[in-house]
Amino acid sequence: MTLPEAKDFSYFYSDETNARKPSQLKTCIHLFHDPNIVFLGGGLPMSDFFPWDNLRIDAALPPFSNGIGAPLSGSPEDSLSVSVKKHNTEAGDIPLARALQYGFSAGQPELIEFLKEHTKLIHDMKYSDWNVVATTGNTNAWESTLRVFCNRGDVILAEAHSFSSSLSSAEAQGVIVFPIPIDADGIIPEKLEKILDEWTPGAPRPKLLYTIPTGQNPTGTSLADDRKKEIYRIAQKHDFLIIEDEPYYFLQMDPYVEDVGKREELRNKPKQTHDEFLKSLARTFLSVDTEGRVIRMDSFSKVLAPGTRLGWLTGSKALLQKYVELHEMTIQAPAGFTQVVVSSTLRRWGQDGYLNWLIGLRHEYTLKRDCAIDALHKYLPKSKAFVVNPPIAGMFFTVDIDASAHPDFATKFGSDPSLVEKAIYDRVIASQVLVVPGSWFKTEGETVPPQPTSSKSINNPNEIFFRGTYAAVVPEKLVEGLKRLGQALAEEFNIKA
Amino acid sequence: MTLPEAKDFSYFYSDETNARKPSQLKTCIHLFHDPNIVFLGGGLPMSDFFPWDNLRIDAALPPFSNGIGAPLSGSPEDSLSVSVKKHNTEAGDIPLARALQYGFSAGQPELIEFLKEHTKLIHDMKYSDWNVVATTGNTNAWESTLRVFCNRGDVILAEAHSFSSSLSSAEAQGVIVFPIPIDADGIIPEKLEKILDEWTPGAPRPKLLYTIPTGQNPTGTSLADDRKKEIYRIAQKHDFLIIEDEPYYFLQMDPYVEDVGKREELRNKPKQTHDEFLKSLARTFLSVDTEGRVIRMDSFSKVLAPGTRLGWLTGSKALLQKYVELHEMTIQAPAGFTQVVVSSTLRRWGQDGYLNWLIGLRHEYTLKRDCAIDALHKYLPKSKAFVVNPPIAGMFFTVDIDASAHPDFATKFGSDPSLVEKAIYDRVIASQVLVVPGSWFKTEGETVPPQPTSSKSINNPNEIFFRGTYAAVVPEKLVEGLKRLGQALAEEFNIKA
Repeated sequence: MTLPEAKDFSYFYSDETNARKPSQLKTCIHLFHDPNIVFLGGGLPMSDFFPWDNLRIDAALPPFSNGIGAPLSGSPEDSLSVSVKKHNTEAGDIPLARALQYGFSAGQPELIEFLKEHTKLIHDMKYSDWNVVATTGNTNAWESTLRVFCNRGDVILAEAHSFSSSLSSAEAQGVIVFPIPIDADGIIPEKLEKILDEWTPGAPRPKLLYTIPTGQNPTGTSLADDRKKEIYRIAQKHDFLIIEDEPYYFLQMDPYVEDVGKREELRNKPKQTHDEFLKSLARTFLSVDTEGRVIRMDSFSKVLAPGTRLGWLTGSKALLQKYVELHEMTIQAPAGFTQVVVSSTLRRWGQDGYLNWLIGLRHEYTLKRDCAIDALHKYLPKSKAFVVNPPIAGMFFTVDIDASAHPDFATKFGSDPSLVEKAIYDRVIASQVLVVPGSWFKTEGETVPPQPTSSKSINNPNEIFFRGTYAAVVPEKLVEGLKRLGQALAEEFNIKA
Repeated sequence: MTLPEAKDFSYFYSDETNARKPSQLKTCIHLFHDPNIVFLGGGLPMSDFFPWDNLRIDAALPPFSNGIGAPLSGSPEDSLSVSVKKHNTEAGDIPLARALQYGFSAGQPELIEFLKEHTKLIHDMKYSDWNVVATTGNTNAWESTLRVFCNRGDVILAEAHSFSSSLSSAEAQGVIVFPIPIDADGIIPEKLEKILDEWTPGAPRPKLLYTIPTGQNPTGTSLADDRKKEIYRIAQKHDFLIIEDEPYYFLQMDPYVEDVGKREELRNKPKQTHDEFLKSLARTFLSVDTEGRVIRMDSFSKVLAPGTRLGWLTGSKALLQKYVELHEMTIQAPAGFTQVVVSSTLRRWGQDGYLNWLIGLRHEYTLKRDCAIDALHKYLPKSKAFVVNPPIAGMFFTVDIDASAHPDFATKFGSDPSLVEKAIYDRVIASQVLVVPGSWFKTEGETVPPQPTSSKSINNPNEIFFRGTYAAVVPEKLVEGLKRLGQALAEEFNIKA
């Protein structure tokens, strides 16, 4: 079956993108590798003068039988010795001489090849001319997305609570973020459609939707699969791009089961096969996209390590080319050492080994999620005012709090839920545990049509919430921290434990 | 002696910088390292789940007795084995667990400490509150500089021919670049002052001067030391910032000596001591700066390897803080592997070892420069129409060409020098050597006062030039390439060799 080509969305480009002239020097840099040409064209130092050779690193060895968190002994029983030379590398490795040189702004071919194979495993691409481009992670990829598409005064859509750093990027650039109501299954398509149907005539229309579909930050919720198709339909109807920011995509879990016996039983089932694992994953916007209207941002930050500063974009060739032209003036390319280590490790693992790693990671995060939710059930004050939301993906849980249940709500706080939030935050910090106020993540730009309420709850305007993570500490500390959180809330709300 | 503090230049910030709210999450990320706090505050994966340990790499060993280009055997005689663990590293190394985590947007402390010591050796800092911030190289640092200071429609100054990618960045952002006349010693202060004295009243005044003082790209010229003081005085008088972009700073050489016997004689003198080397270096704008008006961009691209994607900014704490706030929304930090490899190598070398490396590099580039200029003298057609400019720094030489000496200048080319340039470029490419037309580097924005001529020569409007580099290939290929260039020019100008 021949797949269609992506549609032309060049009318979404920013003034900056339209004004950006691809570097003339880059048009001839490929001649550096042409043996017939004497290259006196650009300031490329000879690799003889790079002071390094023989990069070696121990990596975990598939199938990671001792768990993905086990320390490496360095012996061949549990460790893979990755070794990369300056020249004459093993097949599929990026020689240091090339990795440490200029060039390949879109990413080294060996890494991109692996990522394209990975893409074919995970997504059901529905058009032919898609591509993968390396990035320095989703923070930068999102900031670049704004540069590629948005001018000052342009409007974009985002979940009513979203990642604060992403919102701040837009705000700094003068891009207006319009909040879309969400519930436990993410963006509510009917509300999105209504907002757009009733958009003020003549007002600038949104160019793109920024969404974190899986394990959303900060709410921990995941966008239901059937909603993705609906949202894509609305994107076609109202003509905007969808940017799916998916750093937590592979931290998908089975739903939380409170009964420990039943949980053990489920856990003793035979291990998921790779096919079962792939089938269990949420359907992606990329897999729905027939037109090249979706740009997906993936990152190694949460699945390998944040300091790799390495991620990738997937989308239509034409749109991604505009990122490459921006990258040529900004990052040039992700650092060579990072590309060498990640690419060499992944290629030795193979697609199967990488799936083993992701399955192992999912297992670890499930344990930590369960540990956190168990502790919250145990230590939070027993009151309807506190609601725990067990996530099915990602690193975050939230505790919803009915601020009006505070004994001093009307008096000391003048019925202002944000003041209750502040009081709680001060108290948890004093109790030596750090969780983060939900208001830090509130999406609010100046607005064109009047904004819907951006309370996380669309029913209770007095609801506030705190975001916590089970990612950063070991289980013992996690339990200790949540105990402190429970005590702090009990004190603040004057509830006996 | 107590040094003064930097002046307040916050009135230069762009709208974007003023609107950028520092991330609230970043205000509490340091609590991750506080043993008293249970950190449930941010999505930091545990380092147990980073799949790597024991990074090792061979590095060249000071004092680099076999020359800095010698291949490493891996034995302790010529190689230093750099080895870094996940935890419990040697004193001064960055543990992988920290390097691969979020945090330290300004750069890992071990690297920054080395760079600050280096700064004190090279520059004579004249105010107290300066700082060093890590970058992903000067391309990105310059693009960030434009974001930090410039709005659309703002004006900046640059050398009349400058690095095309830097000019394109400004152009894409809608920043107007005004060209400043240059000669063999760089920017001409009198011309700069006259332009600013006569600036159209009411027109936007330049916010900053972008300059590549040493081994300028593309002209290969270096800004004379006495001119730097003059230009700084003019910057104070007309109130603009100076951005010194210095990737080639350590590729400074003695002047070219044509007589090979004399050259050998000079080369057989005792080796420079470190003190002599330091004294021989050009005075920097940083060393002149008493107010924090200068921001310097340094890079490891030309002295270690481009693919490190690592550099640093030096300037006042206040101004650099605005870069860090931008970095938190873009690169976050240079990649952890890069910081580990570069910092661990440099700290093992020590400041002395690094100076040895830089002295070795200078030696190699001197040999290559001499080889290139010798070959140009030998192979260029003997005619006043072709002038070779031997540089005293950097990677580039230029050949100035009087286009009006072309036999078909008035007829075939209608007396248009740019058409002669095009014809030459086509012919050199057909001759299988790549040198780059000077017009690719021409600084031309829309202008506020009328622009001066931006011909490289301020005397001959028919002068064109080509930029070549002696950096990228070995001497034999360099000679072969310049022979081809000479033949191509002889053919084009119908001159018998």
